[in-house]
Amino acid sequence: MNKVELKPGERLDDLQRCGFQIIQSDASFCFGMDAVLLAAFAGAKEGDHVLDLGTGTGVIPLLMRARTPGTTYEALEINPVSADMAERSVRYNQMEEDIHVIRGDLKEVHTLLKAGSYDVVTSNPPYMIGGHGLVGADEGKAGARHEIWCTLDDVTRQAAKMLKPGGRFCMVHRPFRLAEIIRSLSAHGLEPKRMRLVYPFADREPNMVLIESVRGGRPRMTVEKPLIVYEAQGVYTQEILDLYRE
Amino acid sequence: MNKVELKPGERLDDLQRCGFQIIQSDASFCFGMDAVLLAAFAGAKEGDHVLDLGTGTGVIPLLMRARTPGTTYEALEINPVSADMAERSVRYNQMEEDIHVIRGDLKEVHTLLKAGSYDVVTSNPPYMIGGHGLVGADEGKAGARHEIWCTLDDVTRQAAKMLKPGGRFCMVHRPFRLAEIIRSLSAHGLEPKRMRLVYPFADREPNMVLIESVRGGRPRMTVEKPLIVYEAQGVYTQEILDLYRE
Repeated sequence: MNKVELKPGERLDDLQRCGFQIIQSDASFCFGMDAVLLAAFAGAKEGDHVLDLGTGTGVIPLLMRARTPGTTYEALEINPVSADMAERSVRYNQMEEDIHVIRGDLKEVHTLLKAGSYDVVTSNPPYMIGGHGLVGADEGKAGARHEIWCTLDDVTRQAAKMLKPGGRFCMVHRPFRLAEIIRSLSAHGLEPKRMRLVYPFADREPNMVLIESVRGGRPRMTVEKPLIVYEAQGVYTQEILDLYRE
Repeated sequence: MNKVELKPGERLDDLQRCGFQIIQSDASFCFGMDAVLLAAFAGAKEGDHVLDLGTGTGVIPLLMRARTPGTTYEALEINPVSADMAERSVRYNQMEEDIHVIRGDLKEVHTLLKAGSYDVVTSNPPYMIGGHGLVGADEGKAGARHEIWCTLDDVTRQAAKMLKPGGRFCMVHRPFRLAEIIRSLSAHGLEPKRMRLVYPFADREPNMVLIESVRGGRPRMTVEKPLIVYEAQGVYTQEILDLYRE
């Protein structure tokens, strides 16, 4: 095993998958259940070439690669602090062959990487509109949650550009923006084909939506069975336990 | 109570609400859970003037009026067989003051009734695209299920025309058409504001979507808690029982 290179305030967390570890820092941004659910929902196939837009610390490529050997990733990140953690995590897990961290702005990704060449694009973009509700947070943390560096429409437009025809774009977002999401995907030629709502409890409003769209797909989508997180306060459902363990 | 005027093959069914009855016929089209859920979801307020596009036998106005006295309805239907049953049901329930059945094509509704004048428009439109999967059914039955007399886009366009600014359009449809629904609403200036998915069982795909849009509304929608129909085979959940009884 490689020697871990941690900077002050950082820690190494176990991804509980293939022994993979990830470098994170509370001062920056730690991945949440959104990333775990998106990685499972996206489900790359062997041979797939995947682009993760706004990879942060690289959690989505790491989780997806751990699930499916034989997949390769470009992981794009604008925030140098996160990109640096992602690079060191990739090295620590000896994944340099399969996961390439690219520093850059997703709005310019088509100038950095080959457009029209990806089987799958993933993104866990900032959820909040503009700087709405934002008060004095660290820039990196703010940029991961708020549309400061990129908007929803930037993400869908760039995903559409980078995908092969028939390629899939998988995103996690907030349900309150669902109408905007569907309009934005559609405007860029991405047809929603599969959606799953994540409900914290069976009798609560959903707090996440997983949505897959296909470049040039035909209208007709599958809404999947509900994904329920807790069966009681503090007790995960079997499906969530399986998603974390499988 | 009025004397019931039944034609051959027709029957009188109890709506289990305010003693209201409805004339239906197996040879034509009998209302389903969709109508009951839409009537509850739409929830007109006292004083609301409501338009039901494609009312069939008038079940939605009858259920909504039974729930909320002080509401008035125009119930538009193109099929003369259904419109005739609707008219007789309205008379039988002595609701002629509150529910007006209008015979006509919803594509021309703005020439029959005053555009821009409704607080709420409702519709339980045909779900199936064109004549897809249609084999030798009765025309009336086929027109209620398939987009023969009108398309999804006709319904949303006409709903938008007939609503006051800020008025609400409530529709029930199939989840596989959700992306089309949101695009069509948006194209006609109806902003999706509230949505609820109906899952037959907690671990199955949803088979209905209830969606409310607002004429000229601003983007931001609420996805409500899941509506689960059965808690076990043949056993309704408490919420469904309450919806039928309340």
